Formats: sequence, C-alpha cells, structure tokens
Amino acid sequence: MTQHSRLHGLTPADTANILVEALPYVKGFAGKTIVVKLGGNAIDAEVDKALAQDVLLLRQVGVRCIVVHGGGPQIDETLQAFNIERKFVDGLRVTDADTLQAVRMTLVGKVNRDLVAKFNVEAADNPVAVGVSGEDGGLLVARQVKSELGFVGEVEQVRASVLTRLLDEGLVPVVSTVGADRSGQPYNINADAAACAIAAAVGAEKIVYLTAAPGLLEDPSDPDSLIPRLLASEAEDMIASGKIGDGMIPKLTACISAVLEGVPRAHILDGRIAHSLLIEMLTDEGIGTMIVKGGSHADAG
Amino acid sequence: MTQHSRLHGLTPADTANILVEALPYVKGFAGKTIVVKLGGNAIDAEVDKALAQDVLLLRQVGVRCIVVHGGGPQIDETLQAFNIERKFVDGLRVTDADTLQAVRMTLVGKVNRDLVAKFNVEAADNPVAVGVSGEDGGLLVARQVKSELGFVGEVEQVRASVLTRLLDEGLVPVVSTVGADRSGQPYNINADAAACAIAAAVGAEKIVYLTAAPGLLEDPSDPDSLIPRLLASEAEDMIASGKIGDGMIPKLTACISAVLEGVPRAHILDGRIAHSLLIEMLTDEGIGTMIVKGGSHADAG
Amino acid sequence: MTQHSRLHGLTPADTANILVEALPYVKGFAGKTIVVKLGGNAIDAEVDKALAQDVLLLRQVGVRCIVVHGGGPQIDETLQAFNIERKFVDGLRVTDADTLQAVRMTLVGKVNRDLVAKFNVEAADNPVAVGVSGEDGGLLVARQVKSELGFVGEVEQVRASVLTRLLDEGLVPVVSTVGADRSGQPYNINADAAACAIAAAVGAEKIVYLTAAPGLLEDPSDPDSLIPRLLASEAEDMIASGKIGDGMIPKLTACISAVLEGVPRAHILDGRIAHSLLIEMLTDEGIGTMIVKGGSHADAG
Amino acid sequence: MTQHSRLHGLTPADTANILVEALPYVKGFAGKTIVVKLGGNAIDAEVDKALAQDVLLLRQVGVRCIVVHGGGPQIDETLQAFNIERKFVDGLRVTDADTLQAVRMTLVGKVNRDLVAKFNVEAADNPVAVGVSGEDGGLLVARQVKSELGFVGEVEQVRASVLTRLLDEGLVPVVSTVGADRSGQPYNINADAAACAIAAAVGAEKIVYLTAAPGLLEDPSDPDSLIPRLLASEAEDMIASGKIGDGMIPKLTACISAVLEGVPRAHILDGRIAHSLLIEMLTDEGIGTMIVKGGSHADAG
Amino acid sequence: MTQHSRLHGLTPADTANILVEALPYVKGFAGKTIVVKLGGNAIDAEVDKALAQDVLLLRQVGVRCIVVHGGGPQIDETLQAFNIERKFVDGLRVTDADTLQAVRMTLVGKVNRDLVAKFNVEAADNPVAVGVSGEDGGLLVARQVKSELGFVGEVEQVRASVLTRLLDEGLVPVVSTVGADRSGQPYNINADAAACAIAAAVGAEKIVYLTAAPGLLEDPSDPDSLIPRLLASEAEDMIASGKIGDGMIPKLTACISAVLEGVPRAHILDGRIAHSLLIEMLTDEGIGTMIVKGGSHADAG
Amino acid sequence: MTQHSRLHGLTPADTANILVEALPYVKGFAGKTIVVKLGGNAIDAEVDKALAQDVLLLRQVGVRCIVVHGGGPQIDETLQAFNIERKFVDGLRVTDADTLQAVRMTLVGKVNRDLVAKFNVEAADNPVAVGVSGEDGGLLVARQVKSELGFVGEVEQVRASVLTRLLDEGLVPVVSTVGADRSGQPYNINADAAACAIAAAVGAEKIVYLTAAPGLLEDPSDPDSLIPRLLASEAEDMIASGKIGDGMIPKLTACISAVLEGVPRAHILDGRIAHSLLIEMLTDEGIGTMIVKGGSHADAG
Repeated sequence: MTQHSRLHGLTPADTANILVEALPYVKGFAGKTIVVKLGGNAIDAEVDKALAQDVLLLRQVGVRCIVVHGGGPQIDETLQAFNIERKFVDGLRVTDADTLQAVRMTLVGKVNRDLVAKFNVEAADNPVAVGVSGEDGGLLVARQVKSELGFVGEVEQVRASVLTRLLDEGLVPVVSTVGADRSGQPYNINADAAACAIAAAVGAEKIVYLTAAPGLLEDPSDPDSLIPRLLASEAEDMIASGKIGDGMIPKLTACISAVLEGVPRAHILDGRIAHSLLIEMLTDEGIGTMIVKGGSHADAG
Repeated sequence: MTQHSRLHGLTPADTANILVEALPYVKGFAGKTIVVKLGGNAIDAEVDKALAQDVLLLRQVGVRCIVVHGGGPQIDETLQAFNIERKFVDGLRVTDADTLQAVRMTLVGKVNRDLVAKFNVEAADNPVAVGVSGEDGGLLVARQVKSELGFVGEVEQVRASVLTRLLDEGLVPVVSTVGADRSGQPYNINADAAACAIAAAVGAEKIVYLTAAPGLLEDPSDPDSLIPRLLASEAEDMIASGKIGDGMIPKLTACISAVLEGVPRAHILDGRIAHSLLIEMLTDEGIGTMIVKGGSHADAG
Repeated sequence: MTQHSRLHGLTPADTANILVEALPYVKGFAGKTIVVKLGGNAIDAEVDKALAQDVLLLRQVGVRCIVVHGGGPQIDETLQAFNIERKFVDGLRVTDADTLQAVRMTLVGKVNRDLVAKFNVEAADNPVAVGVSGEDGGLLVARQVKSELGFVGEVEQVRASVLTRLLDEGLVPVVSTVGADRSGQPYNINADAAACAIAAAVGAEKIVYLTAAPGLLEDPSDPDSLIPRLLASEAEDMIASGKIGDGMIPKLTACISAVLEGVPRAHILDGRIAHSLLIEMLTDEGIGTMIVKGGSHADAG
Repeated sequence: MTQHSRLHGLTPADTANILVEALPYVKGFAGKTIVVKLGGNAIDAEVDKALAQDVLLLRQVGVRCIVVHGGGPQIDETLQAFNIERKFVDGLRVTDADTLQAVRMTLVGKVNRDLVAKFNVEAADNPVAVGVSGEDGGLLVARQVKSELGFVGEVEQVRASVLTRLLDEGLVPVVSTVGADRSGQPYNINADAAACAIAAAVGAEKIVYLTAAPGLLEDPSDPDSLIPRLLASEAEDMIASGKIGDGMIPKLTACISAVLEGVPRAHILDGRIAHSLLIEMLTDEGIGTMIVKGGSHADAG
Repeated sequence: MTQHSRLHGLTPADTANILVEALPYVKGFAGKTIVVKLGGNAIDAEVDKALAQDVLLLRQVGVRCIVVHGGGPQIDETLQAFNIERKFVDGLRVTDADTLQAVRMTLVGKVNRDLVAKFNVEAADNPVAVGVSGEDGGLLVARQVKSELGFVGEVEQVRASVLTRLLDEGLVPVVSTVGADRSGQPYNINADAAACAIAAAVGAEKIVYLTAAPGLLEDPSDPDSLIPRLLASEAEDMIASGKIGDGMIPKLTACISAVLEGVPRAHILDGRIAHSLLIEMLTDEGIGTMIVKGGSHADAG
Repeated sequence: MTQHSRLHGLTPADTANILVEALPYVKGFAGKTIVVKLGGNAIDAEVDKALAQDVLLLRQVGVRCIVVHGGGPQIDETLQAFNIERKFVDGLRVTDADTLQAVRMTLVGKVNRDLVAKFNVEAADNPVAVGVSGEDGGLLVARQVKSELGFVGEVEQVRASVLTRLLDEGLVPVVSTVGADRSGQPYNINADAAACAIAAAVGAEKIVYLTAAPGLLEDPSDPDSLIPRLLASEAEDMIASGKIGDGMIPKLTACISAVLEGVPRAHILDGRIAHSLLIEMLTDEGIGTMIVKGGSHADAG
C-alpha cells in the first residue's frame, strides 16, 4: 500500500508496535518526576537539541523533569581567565574564596544560562526552562566536607518544595549545584551527588546520568560488553573489584545511593546517541545500564 | 550496537522518530473527544482485538472515545430466526412493530453486549466499556422519517450530556442507535447518520468510519488510487459525479455532514488493518481518506 | 371553611399531620440510596405509572433510586418465538448458549428498554432513566453456579461505582441482571439475589421487593394476616417451618441476606397498590412487611 | 386492609395524593427563601408550637426561613411599667428617646428572646434560631419618617448579607425591626413594612403575614367570603374602595409593595390555624389570600 | 531632615522600631481569636472610641475579635425604673423571674445595642458588629448555680460554632451573657466567667479583661507596683494571701481558669488608657498584667 | 507609669498613633505587589540588613515584593579581572560578546547570588528569596537597541507569570535584568527601565527606586529642598529644564514611564536611611519623592 511508504520507510505494523508499546509508558510516567544529570560539556549541537526536545516532549505528556548540570571544563576556563592558581592539599584541589566565586559565576552565570537558553529556544513560544541555583529558596543546604578543601560542600538538606513548586507550574528547573550553609556561606557541591540527593528528595521515579559512554561495560575496552541491568549490590561489588574506570565510579556510586534512598531506577545512558532519553523511557528494552535496588550490603545493614 | 537490535529490528533513530512524531499528537488529543463508527460485522478476531487495544490506549492517554455501532447482518439473522417477513414499499424496507422489536433486541441485547464484552475483556481489571442505547437518558430524540417506512427514525436532538458524563468518568460509551420520540415510541436510526449527529453534539475533534476498504479510491478498481485528503465540496462533487460505489455513499455523506456541522476532521479508514486507528491518530501521514471543511456548496448557502 | 374542602376532602389537620410526618422522612432519606426490585410483568398501566412517579418524586427530593428488574414471562415468550427447547437436568432448567443469548436479548433489549421508556416518558423533559446491564463497566462479575446448569451465574463481585456514578449525576439506573465472568462469558443471574448484592454494595438504606401480594402473611390464605415487621432470625425460622409459599421464598431469602449484609431495612410490598413505595417511605406506619436485622442464626455464627 | 387504618384514618390513596402533591413543592422551594411576619402577641401555645415546627420542618427540607416579628402589646406593657406617658401629635403617637429605649428593650430584649427560646426548645439538640436586630451588621439602615414623630423610622437600605450569611449556615434569623441611621441613632420601624423590605432585599420567593383573620374577606363580616387570590392592582382598588378593615390595611399595603418590588407571592394567612404555613406551602390549593403581581397602577407608572 | 518632623515628632528610627516590632505580631495574630471583656460602664467617650478603633483595626489585619460585655450599673437603673425590689438570701442577691426579665431586657436590649451602635458608627460603611445573646443558636447552655439564688446560671456548654461562623464572615460578635437551659429557661450568667468559657471554647489565643485599674498591683495603694507577669500558681497564691482587692478577684479568678483551660495568655489591662488593647497586642513590652500557665495547684492535680 | 518607659522611650500615645496609622496601610497593601529597585553597590551592611528585614516583614503581612537589581561597579571589576577592554562608539559603551558574557556572569552569578544569600540569611528557617534572570521562563524578551552598541537590549515583552507564580507561592524574586531575544541571544538591559517594565506588567501598586540621595531635590546642592510629591508632567518639565542631576535622570524617567503605564505610585527614596522602605509604606507622610500620574504631555497625546 503506497501511502504507508511515507511512514519513515516502516510498515504500519512496525509503527503500530512502537506506539502500542510506548503509550502505556506515557500513561505510567504521567505525573511522575525524573531527574536528568548532564555534564558541563556539550557533545554536539544536534544531540543537545535532541535532548532538549526529549525533555520538552516528556513534559508535554505530563512527565515532571528536573535537569541538573555540572561544568568542569567551563570552570577551568574561567579560572584561567581570572588567573586563579589551582591549589592542592594532599593531591586534592582546594576551593578558596576566589575559586568559589569563579565557580559560582561560571555555573550559575554561564553554564546554567546557556542550557536555559537552549531549552527555551527549542520551546519557542512557551519558554519553560528556569534556572535555579542551590541557594535559591534554600534548595541545597550545604556543609563543609573537610576544612582543608575549603568551600567544597556536601548536601545536608534538600528543600524540595523549591523544585516541586516549579514542576507544579509545568516548568523545567535547570539546577546549578552551588549550595549555602545556614550562615549564607556558599559551597560548591559535586553535581552527581547533588542530583542523587535531589532525586531522593522529590521522590523521583528515575534518575538518568547522561555520559559519553554506552553505559557500564563488563569490559571497558569492549563496547559490546554493556551490562543492561544491575542490582545495587552487584554494582557495589563491581566497584570493589576495581574493574570500573575512574570516570564511571562517581556516577555508579550516585546511582547506588539513589536506589538505596528510594529512587526506583537509576540509569547510565549514552548521551551521545540522539534521543537516548526518550528511547529509554518509552520502549520495553531501554538502552544503557539500569541499576535497581536489591541485595545491597548497605541494605542489609 | 547490539542492544538496539532488540527494538523490533528498528534502529534507535527509527524508534525515536516515531516517538518524537507521536508525542505532540498524544498531547494534542488529550482531553479531546473522538467518535469511532464500526459496522456490525466483525472482520477478524485479531483486528477486533487491535481496535479494542487502540481505543483503550487512546483513553489511557486522555482521549475521550465514543464507539457507535451498526448491526445489519445480525439483524437479518434475528428476523430470520423470528420468521419475520421483510416488507418493502417502493423498494424501501419497512420497519413494522415486530421488526423494530427484533432490531432493538439485536442491537441493544446482542451486538452492543458483544462489543462491550470484547472491550472489557481487553481492559481486564478496569472494565470501562458501558453499553448505551439512544433511549437512555433521552440520548437520541428521534422522529419518523416517512410514515410509509414505519419505525425508521432520524435524529431530532442529541442529549450529549448522557455521553459526556460517562466520558468525564473515564468510561467508553458503546452506543446502539435506537432512539425514541417524546411519547416514548422507539425508532431504528441509521448508525452512520447517528454517529455524525453525536460527533457534532459532543464537539468531537474527529469522527472515524472504519470500513472494509482502504478509504476512498479515485478508481474503485485500483486499490492504489487512494485519495488521502478531500475538501467537503470535492466530496460532494464526487458523489454527484456518480463515481462513488454504493456502499461508500452513506459514509461519505455522513463525513460531509460531520465537517459541515463543525467536526474538524472526518475519516474513512481501512478497518481491516490492525491498529489503523492508532496509526491515523498518532503519525504525521495518517492513512485512509480524510475529509475536511472547505468550499462546500452547502457552505456557500 | 369552604376553601379547605378542596383539599382532597380532607381537613387541614389531616393534611398537616401527613406533611408533618412526611418531611422528616424526606430529610432523612435525602442523599440515601434505595434499591427497588420489580418483577418482569407489568401489573397494570396505572400502577406502573404510579411507580414511575414515586421513583421520580423520591429522586427529586434527593433519594438515590436504583431499579432492578426480572423478566421471566418475557423470556419464555422469546424462547418460544426462537423455537428454543427448554432443557432440564434433575428438574432444573439448563441455560445453554442459545438460551442465554435469548435471555440477554430479552432482558437487555426488551424488558429493560420498555422500563426505561416508561420512566422517561413520565419524566418528560428530563429523561433520567438509564438502562444498565450487569456487563457494563463490569458491574456484576459472575461465576457459574453449577456446570450442569450451564450459563446460570451468581454474583462474585459488584463494581458499585458504575451505579454510584450515575446516581451522583441524578440519574436512575435500571439494571438487567446479566453478568459476565472475567473472560467475558455472560451469565444469567437471579434478579432477587442480584438486587440484594447491589443494595449491599452501594450501601443502600433500604431494599424494596414489589410483589403481587400484600406482603408476608402469617396465613397465606388470609390476606388480613399480614406480618408488618420481622427479625431476620424470625424470617429464617418461618422459612424453615415450611409455612411460606414457594413464590415468596426467594424474596424472603434475599431480604434476610440484605439485612445480614448491612442493609438496614428490607421490605416486601404490594406492588399492586398504587404509590405503595411512597407510602412506605414517607409515613410512620409503612405498609407490607419489613425485615430488620436481629437474632439471626447466621448472625450468631 | 387493616394495617392502613392506622394512617390517620385515611386511605392509602388519600395519603398518597397529599404526598404526590407535596413533593414537587418540597423540591421547588429547596434553596428558596421565605419571610414570615408574626405579630407580637402569641395566639395560643399549641399554635405557636405548630408554627415553630413548620419553620423547622421547612428548614430541614432546604427552605431558608426568615422570621420577622412585631410587638405592640408587649411595648405597651413596658411603657406602663416604666411610667412613660404616651404623647401624640395630630393623633399620631410620638416616639421620644425614652419611648425608643423602652421599645428597643422590649423588642430586642424580650419579644425576640422569647421567640428564639420557643424555636430553640422545639429544635432540641440543634438550636438554629438566632435573634437579630436591625442594628446588627447594619441590617436595617433607617431614616426618620417625620421629625414631629421623633424616632419613628423607615427603611432606607437593607444589608441583606447579614441575613443571607445566617441562612447559608442553616440558621433561622428572628428579626426585631429596630434600625439605625448612619450616625448610629436607632429608630423604631414598622414591622410589616420592614418585613416587606427584607423580603425584597433577600430575593424571597414568598412573604407570609400571619394574622388573626382567615385572610382577606370580600365582606369582613362573612368569614366564608375569603378572597383566595388577588392581583396587586385589585388589592389597590380594594384599599381605595374603603372596604378593607383598618387592621388589614398595613398588611395588604405591605403585600402590594412586596410583589411590586419583585417578591413573586405575598400571603395573608390565618395564624390561628395550626400548621397553616405548611399547608399553604406544600399543597395545591393553599389557604388564606395570595397577592401576585399584575395590573398595578404603580406598575403602569 | 525637615520632612520627618511631621512624623508625630518622632525620628524615622523611632517610627521604624515600632513598625519592625509590630509587624511580626500582626502576622502572628492573623487568623487567631481574642476575647475582650468590657464592663458595662463606659469610661469616657474618647476611650470607648479608641477601643472600637482598636478592635476594628485588629479585625482588618485578620484578628478575630469577640467582645463580651457586662452591665451591672445599667441593670440597677432598670430595676429601679421598674420598681423591682432587690431580694437577698444569706447576703446574696436573688434573681427572680421579674429581675431576670429586667436583666435580659437591659443586657440584650440596651447595653449590647449601645455597644453594637458604637462599633458600627466607627466602622462606617462596613458595619461589622453583631449583637449576640447567649440564647442565640444555643450559644451558652446554662444550669442553675443554686436554687436559692433563682435564675443565676453558670455555663454548662458553649456552642462555639455560633461565634466562629460570625468570625469566619469577618464580623465582630458582641455577646450578652444571658444563657438558657435545655428547657428554654433563661439564666443570667456572670460575664467574667462566661468570657472565660467562651475563650476556652473558641480556642482563643488571648483573653483581655479591660478594667479601671492599671492591672494587678503588688500594693493596691501604689500604682507603680504593677505586676507585669504572673504564673497561674502565683496568682492563686496571691488570692489565697488575701492581698487582692475584692473587685479584682473575679477577674483574676477568670484569668486563672482561662489559662488552665488552655488559653495561652490572659490579661488585665487598664481600660482607661486609650488604645491599651492595641499597645498590648502589638509591642514587645505589653502593658497591664499578663497571666500565663505554670505551676498551678490545679495543674498539679 | 513606669512600665511604659520601656517602650523605646515613647509614650503609649506615640506608639498607639503610629500603630493606628500603620494598620490600615498594612491592610491596604495586603495582596498588592511592589517592585523595589536597588543599585548594585551595597551602602553599608546595617542598611542592607534593614532593607532585607523590611522586605521580609512586608511579605509576612501579605505584600508581594519583587526586588530588581543593577550592578555597574561589580561589572567593572569583572571586566578588569578578565582584561576586557572597554570599547566606545560615539561616546557610548559597546557591549560585545565577551563583555556580555562577563556582564551576565557578574549579574546572575555574583550580584544576584549575594543578594539572595543576604535575604535568605535574614529569613533564617524560611529562605524565600529566589534568584531569577530575565532569561528564565522567557521573563524578559529583549530586542537590540542599536546595532552599533552590540548586545544592549530593551524590553520587548515581559512574561509576568514567571514572577507572579513565585509571588503566589510566597517567594521573593530577586531579578537580574539580562534578557534574551526569541533566538536565544542574551542582551544586557538597563535595570531602571527593566524594573519599570516589570512593575507595569505585574500590575504593581508601587515602584520604589532606592538611591544614594534623599529623593528629588529642588536644588541639588540643598538637601533640605526635597520635593515630596510631583505630577508626571511636572517631572517631565523638570527634566526638560535641565535642572536634574545626571544620575537622577534615568530614575526619574523610569518613574514617569511607570506611572504612565499604570503603576499608581513611583518613589525615589533614600536607600541610606535604614528602613526607609517600611516608613514610606506604612506611615502617612512617607519620605523621599513620590511621582503620580497627572498632566503628562505623553498623557495628553
């Protein structure tokens, strides 16, 4: 039948199968919240645009999306421009007052801004992205990790209502992970960990880490060795076994924390594939690696 | 990438394209009403099951679906079983009191029941299909068409609230087109015309006639000559030209009436293709023939 | 005083007494639900009209009325017309597939329709009666009573929301007691028993069985031996004593079940007296026989 | 049938007729407001009790009742006790400061109190009567009628919300007709006129004047010459004709004003017949005299 | 700075300090209820006007104010005017039927009326004061204190909803403390005690007794010996010690009862200082004497 | 009376006068919106703390406050640190891409952050300040002023809902005036003008410009020549006369625009006086200069 050849070269049956599969997910996620963590560095303009589309499409069908971003490379650029020297204590980077200032200006005043702009351009007449810093409305209450490291903080409390209020209004919060302690002192907080704390606090259905890898690989050198599904306890064992590459450890650790704190599913997805978020959410198979609760050592505690 | 081979043999890009295309339709139809007219005769169990699935999936994502059914073949069976003779006046079938009784028993007590059962079995723990006769709550107020034809009626008024109340509750009304006049006398009403009146009265976004043909063909003998889109005025011209097959005329006429009475789109779809309803609703191209308002002679009046 | 002679030949004091007595009942029943069970056979047109009036008047002052009907005589007519032979196993009638089809067509497509029409004609511009089959929205989930009897079912579950939704909208559901099991197979269910299950499920204040007798008689041959009030346990004893006529046993049994399942009052009323429903509801004395909870053997269990 | 002999000696048909007649009125008056004006002097304890019952029964079925009272005889008693001399100007009684004080103490502190007590005793555990003076919440804004008469006022404005708020809460306001001008100076206002102004301001459906007469009589000496229904213009003509007894003129005048200001029906009822209010409200015939709009001279203006 | 000299001769800093101090109190009392008890005798017109202003200003910013009044001097005047002799039993005044009638006429028909007028004149176009007697809506259910004293009652039950409904509507109830028992017999109730019972029943935040003294004095002869704050137990000790003047004992006793029954704060304020209520409510220091819960003997019980 | 000496050395009458004056303003501003424009440079810590207190106190009593900030001095610091050269065209500063980046980082990532922190520290356990950039949710849609000046924008549209949503939630938006055009290109917008556009768009009751001057002076060299009140037309005349100092012109111009666009009152206040905002809002006299609509030349147009 000629007229169907226009359907992306797919048969009606192919198309129907995908739709029949997707609609129950659409229904199931309606009204649910997801947290999507992005790195600071754009991969390429096309993929970024696809991600913005995915978030906006999910929002249209009722999914409440929170975007959390990092910004390592951009911070480095700013420090260089300001001629701020990097200091180290026992091999760990120290965040002094000047560095903190530069970090905050970069994350809140640049990376966050660029993301908000990208989403809002995509959203056209209904700009729904809103930048939020962890300091706004006391969203992220921070405490110092270790005095030698200066203004490096960890999350002490999340005031989830700051975000849920925006979600209730149909907006998409884009969060920079600078927090403040109760005296108003700001701290830089690791974005992977902050995303996890936020997901737990808002009762998210899912947290998704977008990375520059296909997911967690059994053998980091073999891209075909992807592990599609992992219990939290198995993930802990893999970290203990030393087989995980350094870059993946904070993501996997945050995934484990998220599921232990009650987020049903945590995902590490390949951010380089356009629309990977949508495919993961709305098809039976999913892509990348999913971590779910089960048999965790911490669990047993 | 191996893991994607599981996606119905489609690439992630294919899947993503369909989803990206479908979600705005999902959003757009949410809260809107559609009317689906079926013939009385099942095509095959598989296709019927697919239709029930389509209606239930659309309902899940917020589309308000009304199903209207006919029942010619089943009525003939009942008349035969009751030994009721068919009478004709000037070649038109006469509906006397006994015939009407048999028609009503068949439509309301048999065809409607079987459809409700089919939908509710598919809906499993949440049986949402509810049978409705045009007499219930005064849904279809009828008047006699012509005294020689006996109890053959046409729609004088539609009490849409009977249906909108059910839709508000998330139910799927399945309508038999027996109406009653103000004295309580029942009449048999043509289901194609009744579906059109109902669609106009509830402010439907779409009316869909499922038939045993691919749609309207330029050349009835060439299944590849499908006309995908037609203005109401063009449809009127085609009927006037005598090129349309007899069976298609009442459907096309009802489509023209529907768009003239304010239903934005009327469709003639191939009910023999599984999930044709879903494909029409959620993809860019659609299938079958769509009639929209424009340049109608009646319009000009 | 001349002008009062116009008050139905009653003195103002008579009229006032009835009104003073009735208004607290009107207030007390407002928002409450009652179930009225009718046999399939009309008594006479006048009495039927009076019943329709009673239900509509009660509805006007806020009583939520559900009508449940039987249809024995009409079913017999249909079976005869279809030339369906009656089969028996151990003296009990067997409902095979053809019989069931005929039963369903008759109850849903004929008796129910005729009742709905009668109520809606009486209701004039506000047709509130709506036919409902036990299959609609899964109202009556049935299971087979005994395989030898074929498609004779009993109530496994009542999905009360199908009815309460209609009541919330001010409608009067008229229920045919055909149910379906979870596979969609329909069953014929005894209407007395189904009415009882419905009354319990909707939390009815009262269930009323309209019969062709003045109520329960101490001595069936003496119409003046009416028993106005009976405990459930006394009713059980009377059945056990064998003094109850055959026709009355299923009604009395259903009354006992109803009060044991929490319906405060069950009544057997003389359906041949015009407005017997209204008199029972709104005067101190009531008429017919009332069964209330108390001292039941099952209770003691 | 023996059991029906208990129904006040009436046949079931008699009872049914009254109920069938009353229920539509019950429905029709639900949510509507009526104003009942009483004189200050009780007729007899039985009739008073019946009136309290009527108002409470009507309230139970959703009628919003406002009671307005006078108090001539009681005021005379107080004046005498206080040794306040009556003064006259041109034959009209003058209300000086001392008299006003005595009037207010009597109406608000005695007559109103006694009525509230009577209603609340009848209402038992749900005491719904609440005394209101025209000064409360600025209910009756008064102005002086004529400086020679002292503190005799007429209604300049009614702040209906004072009463509608109480009615919304299911309460029965019992109103003393002492008003105040904008400087806070109290005035005594004629209760018949004040009741009329209140009825118009709250949008009452009916105003009822309870008197010690059967209604308006064609021939005051013949109690059988009751006029059941009168147009406002006919009532004006009767007053002009001089045929109306003095005591009846202010009542009839107030009735005329009420219907001209939009109250659909005004009634003069025999307050000596127990339950006359209920009979008037809930039966077809009514009792006493009803004045309705039509052909008024003022109308024509 | 010239322009500030217009600020009541205060510096901007003075003004700012008072506002900064007052606003949190404004916020804190919003939606809370206070009871203000006045004696029957006006102090002077200026102070009365100031009190009316205070109550209306507090109401404007959301404080729910109930005013309770006494009326000793006015009652004496009425008794004299009526020539009612005072009777005593064992030195206590007896309230016989005539006396009660006079008390009720005076409190409800005169004192209450005058207060309502005073408040409503101050409130100008939005007259919010509404007179309430303890008999209205069964507000104060009374029982006899002692048969020898006649119709002297004490509070058995408070139907708080009568007042809370008025408060919900933004009105200011002005309460006369005449109650009734369940048979409708009225009783005169001590206003200090009734105010306390009302405060406890409505969950008041504060009860304020306005008196003609600066508060509770350590040494009644030394106006500078004011006790600003007192625990309930300390107040009990002071009464036991006999150091409290007679007039102050019922007030102090009522204050103790109020805090023991859950009213957080009870105050005895100098009603002769204009705006003493406002100053007490909205500044840090307060004026007069405050009694709070703590160490009460009754507490320990 | 000793105890009153503790009231800030003021008499009870002084205190009472201020409270009596303030409460109607408190009531009047409840639910109304005000816009407060601050310069970028803090005056001193004490005054800043007082401003934060004022805003939080006003919010507590229901005033909806929007804070808009500038940041000239801080931008200069950043440009210097980044070694970005200042470019000029015809004496006007050019904002190229690098400058814009630095402006945005400074306003959004530094000045806004510091203000939010200051407010939230003051707000303690209820941190209500939320930073907002004009890009968030498309708040400020910008267009280029003049291509030679680069990325200097003016307000084309305000999406007020971004702010009103936050206000509805009881939050205090702190706004940086960076906007974006529909392609997502950011622009730097003058904060005085942006504050004016925002005030008009949200329907503000008042806009307040806090400056380092006592208000508008008749003679800039004489601080006692303050003009307390000015019509918009008089303000236009003063600008035309050349008597206004350069720094004051943009503020005065923005005030004129604000009142012409419907903001009832615009104020220029001395930000150096602690609590000047509170004094202006809640006392009769106000401080600084108020501009109101009237006789404007533009008006006449």
